[in-house]
Amino acid sequence: MNTVEIIKTRLANLRLQMEKANVQAYCFSGTDPHQSEYLPGHWQSRSFISGFTGSAGLVIVTRDNTALWTDSRYFLQAATELDGTGIEMMKQRVAGTPEPAEWLSETLSQADTVGTDFSCMSINQYKQFSSDLAAKGLSLKDTGDLLAAFWEDRPTMPTNKISEHELQFAGTKRTDKFKGVLQFVKANGANATVITALDDLAWTFNLRGTDVDFNPVFIGFAFLSEDQKILFVDSIKIDSNLADQLQEEGIQLREYVGFYDFLLNLKDDRVVMLDPARTNQAVRDAIPDAVRIIEQTSAPTLLKAQKSTFEIIHIRETMKKDGAAMVNFLYWLGKTVGKSPMTEYDVVEKLEYFRSQQEGFRGNSFYPIVGLNGNGAIVHRSVTKETAASICDEGILLFDSGGQYLGGTTDITRTIALSKPTKMQKRDFTLVLKGMIGLSMAQFPAGTVGSNLDCYARMHLWKNGMNYGHGTGHGIGYFLNVHEGPMSIRQEYNEQTIKPGMVLSNEPGLYREGEYGIRIENVIVCTENEETPFGRFLAFETLTLCPIDLTLVDKKLLTAEEMDWINQYHKKVLKKLSPLLENEQLDFLKKLTREIN
Amino acid sequence: MNTVEIIKTRLANLRLQMEKANVQAYCFSGTDPHQSEYLPGHWQSRSFISGFTGSAGLVIVTRDNTALWTDSRYFLQAATELDGTGIEMMKQRVAGTPEPAEWLSETLSQADTVGTDFSCMSINQYKQFSSDLAAKGLSLKDTGDLLAAFWEDRPTMPTNKISEHELQFAGTKRTDKFKGVLQFVKANGANATVITALDDLAWTFNLRGTDVDFNPVFIGFAFLSEDQKILFVDSIKIDSNLADQLQEEGIQLREYVGFYDFLLNLKDDRVVMLDPARTNQAVRDAIPDAVRIIEQTSAPTLLKAQKSTFEIIHIRETMKKDGAAMVNFLYWLGKTVGKSPMTEYDVVEKLEYFRSQQEGFRGNSFYPIVGLNGNGAIVHRSVTKETAASICDEGILLFDSGGQYLGGTTDITRTIALSKPTKMQKRDFTLVLKGMIGLSMAQFPAGTVGSNLDCYARMHLWKNGMNYGHGTGHGIGYFLNVHEGPMSIRQEYNEQTIKPGMVLSNEPGLYREGEYGIRIENVIVCTENEETPFGRFLAFETLTLCPIDLTLVDKKLLTAEEMDWINQYHKKVLKKLSPLLENEQLDFLKKLTREIN
Repeated sequence: MNTVEIIKTRLANLRLQMEKANVQAYCFSGTDPHQSEYLPGHWQSRSFISGFTGSAGLVIVTRDNTALWTDSRYFLQAATELDGTGIEMMKQRVAGTPEPAEWLSETLSQADTVGTDFSCMSINQYKQFSSDLAAKGLSLKDTGDLLAAFWEDRPTMPTNKISEHELQFAGTKRTDKFKGVLQFVKANGANATVITALDDLAWTFNLRGTDVDFNPVFIGFAFLSEDQKILFVDSIKIDSNLADQLQEEGIQLREYVGFYDFLLNLKDDRVVMLDPARTNQAVRDAIPDAVRIIEQTSAPTLLKAQKSTFEIIHIRETMKKDGAAMVNFLYWLGKTVGKSPMTEYDVVEKLEYFRSQQEGFRGNSFYPIVGLNGNGAIVHRSVTKETAASICDEGILLFDSGGQYLGGTTDITRTIALSKPTKMQKRDFTLVLKGMIGLSMAQFPAGTVGSNLDCYARMHLWKNGMNYGHGTGHGIGYFLNVHEGPMSIRQEYNEQTIKPGMVLSNEPGLYREGEYGIRIENVIVCTENEETPFGRFLAFETLTLCPIDLTLVDKKLLTAEEMDWINQYHKKVLKKLSPLLENEQLDFLKKLTREIN
Repeated sequence: MNTVEIIKTRLANLRLQMEKANVQAYCFSGTDPHQSEYLPGHWQSRSFISGFTGSAGLVIVTRDNTALWTDSRYFLQAATELDGTGIEMMKQRVAGTPEPAEWLSETLSQADTVGTDFSCMSINQYKQFSSDLAAKGLSLKDTGDLLAAFWEDRPTMPTNKISEHELQFAGTKRTDKFKGVLQFVKANGANATVITALDDLAWTFNLRGTDVDFNPVFIGFAFLSEDQKILFVDSIKIDSNLADQLQEEGIQLREYVGFYDFLLNLKDDRVVMLDPARTNQAVRDAIPDAVRIIEQTSAPTLLKAQKSTFEIIHIRETMKKDGAAMVNFLYWLGKTVGKSPMTEYDVVEKLEYFRSQQEGFRGNSFYPIVGLNGNGAIVHRSVTKETAASICDEGILLFDSGGQYLGGTTDITRTIALSKPTKMQKRDFTLVLKGMIGLSMAQFPAGTVGSNLDCYARMHLWKNGMNYGHGTGHGIGYFLNVHEGPMSIRQEYNEQTIKPGMVLSNEPGLYREGEYGIRIENVIVCTENEETPFGRFLAFETLTLCPIDLTLVDKKLLTAEEMDWINQYHKKVLKKLSPLLENEQLDFLKKLTREIN
């Protein structure tokens, strides 16, 4: 069977299960019991059922139709992957696209039921979706996982070992983190909390795993109160030394599957704080009605977003390593391109190779996005050996990659010209760069939210009738997930204010379909900048250390201040990376960071 | 009795009524049954009970305490007006200020009841406040208006005549407006709507009144459905000619007080759309349970926000008149200041006088804000003959004023130097001006909300550790309220996108307490600007025509583009106003609009 036939067979099997479960539609929210973005194979049900491999999307199957909702990052990819399957793509945030409940109300009959697996749907998603459906006369029902009945070669739950994130990198003891979490829990009127998001869990316990690609997390849950610190993970994942150590620190270890049972037996005197955005509805349903629940953004989510001074010092060191790896990569690319055969896939591999030469590297922080010319316009492209285009010394190359290091997580995009760029390419690149610099140089009052800052990165593009269809900045974990909440810098409103210590990406872009893509991404950290009679003002420090391709810069479009920013930045890059580079690569870096005026 | 004693006596009287009504607190939401910002005397209960005369604030009285919540525009004014009354000021949006429910929970006992007049509280306010109180174990109860029992010289309901807003200015027949409103109502699944906000009512019926200071509205309600168009106004307000005309057009006239009774008798087949932000809770309660209600932003609110091409043409004409009046005022000021005695109050009067010389002028659109030096830092200062400072030819003068004309409503602030400005004054003024120009020149994609644009106006101030504590832009009516929703340009999120035809203020400022205030305000209209492969882009056209004081401009801080904007703007001002000015004033204007470089 070819891929299309496989998908069609799976859909037919699912429809049999839907009939048995007496539901007229089935919904794949596209996540796992931990609301993860990157999923262990066991929970990659969206990709299993639809063939779509992007990291965001919602699939709904009815008796006769199937639809996938996804965002603009994935429009091109989804169009290719869904081709021939009969699955319709619904473009999110595009005028005329029906909302899922709307689409269902047109497809189903009044009083029909939509099934889904409540353990793979957050409380917030559940509330919104069930109320949207109710408004259309439809209802939502927990059918559990309908794929279980016919997914034969389904990946098992990962049994990978969990390891300590040593204190020399973590900086804060887990017992102190428990205290911080419980202090926050208490301040919100609760006396206990569940930790359900995997990065929250890893951060709180100073533990890391390899259960998920790119994110150094492990599958588990936790329950924290003054009297109980319980970690629910499969015992096979923890070796006896670590188990002893944890128990010595007062941590109880229980099996992963025991979490729901534990909740069912919670005593009435518990007041449980949980995060409706990061906790699944099955967890909510397992907590007895007599137990009071307080909904609040998860304490670890909020606490870990503001990196400690200790962590930031480590991130600065990590950025030197990552920058040196990037320069070594750029040097290899410059020497090789046009001389030896090369594809986009080689770039993917070399990016990882040069990072792997750095101490403390533990793997990519996401699958590198590499796009030559028109491929660069496919915003979240996943290149394989088979789909990789040949690279010769012509055009524009975009590469977005990052590493997991014991001392931090990196995420960087550079766009370089492989040949003399056109006037339009230089103009586009420079307008994107002006936005990136504008945000880098911004100062703003404490209390500002990300959507108030987003236009710093877009205004020069907007002025020229251009825009990009993704956010400007996402939070970044510390040897943790490369996408980390709760704050963001994007047009969409997010109530979380940008606070000192928050580490974010700064990544405006521009994409011309079929021609080329441009994105320039640095990692920035929010800093206290000054206090004036008008209040406290914050700013950003750029952490990423890697040159920006000056051959793509149209200097006439820069202000003196922007030009100065570039020169200062390149001076810093050269200074910080020099000690980590060999002679030829250092000479190369000197050329790349030459002063412009 | 002096003012403080009067307030104390009133509070004592209120407490007697609270005891009778069996409530432990009483809340003045500070509005009327129509959620008006400017209130007829009859409903000025907040000012009656507290002595505070600002346009925004919430007063809560308990047995032992009274508190007023207000925003930064009124901090200085409230401090003065509340002095000695024992009423505590609560500074909204300042860290540490308790929310009303929080404050009440600390003041009252568990299970206590807070009373208020539901007819003076919007549905949204009711929902939020009652749920905030419930979370603290307190309840909210409709006591009606407790002031009725002891407010002896209370102003009666206004009986002012209602007049036609003639079609030559309105541009669209009211019957066509009904159609537009009902089309929107139908699209939202309803078959009827109530019109409760006074500006919505005036716009929909092409009628105007004089019941409220500055806003040309009249007290009334309306009910609209395919089969019924009912206007609820006191019959004494409509002369027989107008009554005949309205009835001829199929409009039923009923008494104002009959509105609630009418609602109580609504038939079950009605589906009523109402705006929870602009409809009071007593209206909501009057609608029978069997009648379905659809909550949605009011149709007239949305429809009138996007001015028609016809209206914009009239606004442009009106801006010429308003600009000519401003130049005549500036000419008078320049000739008089330092030579004849003059106070801030003379400025208030002269601004109105020069406007009144223009055809179609119907009064001020708000009470002019005039502040010399330190008084300019009191953001919404209301100067009286008694409090007016003397003006000599020294310092900085801020004046914010506007007119109601048959062909539009104006709102303009200028800040001028009466003597040679200091370096700091020029720097402050120029940074404010850069923000005003930045927003004026912005281009942005369709779908952008105001909070995404706000930082255009603030970024130069922020960069220098400065800020202002008010919004950047509010909507403006068409011969209607100078503050008109639903959109805004401010840091706070507002889901309404900025759409073509929307008329807004653009008014960044800077306030140094005790020193001076700077604000530069123009009226702008959103326009379709270009369509590119990246989508539809909108921009702003500046409508206000009045020179900006160049003596306060520090040219070194301007970019070439900003300098060019000023020159182009002044060129346009000169061209458009020349035909309306006499010789001396024209020469004066030529000087004011001289080219800079």
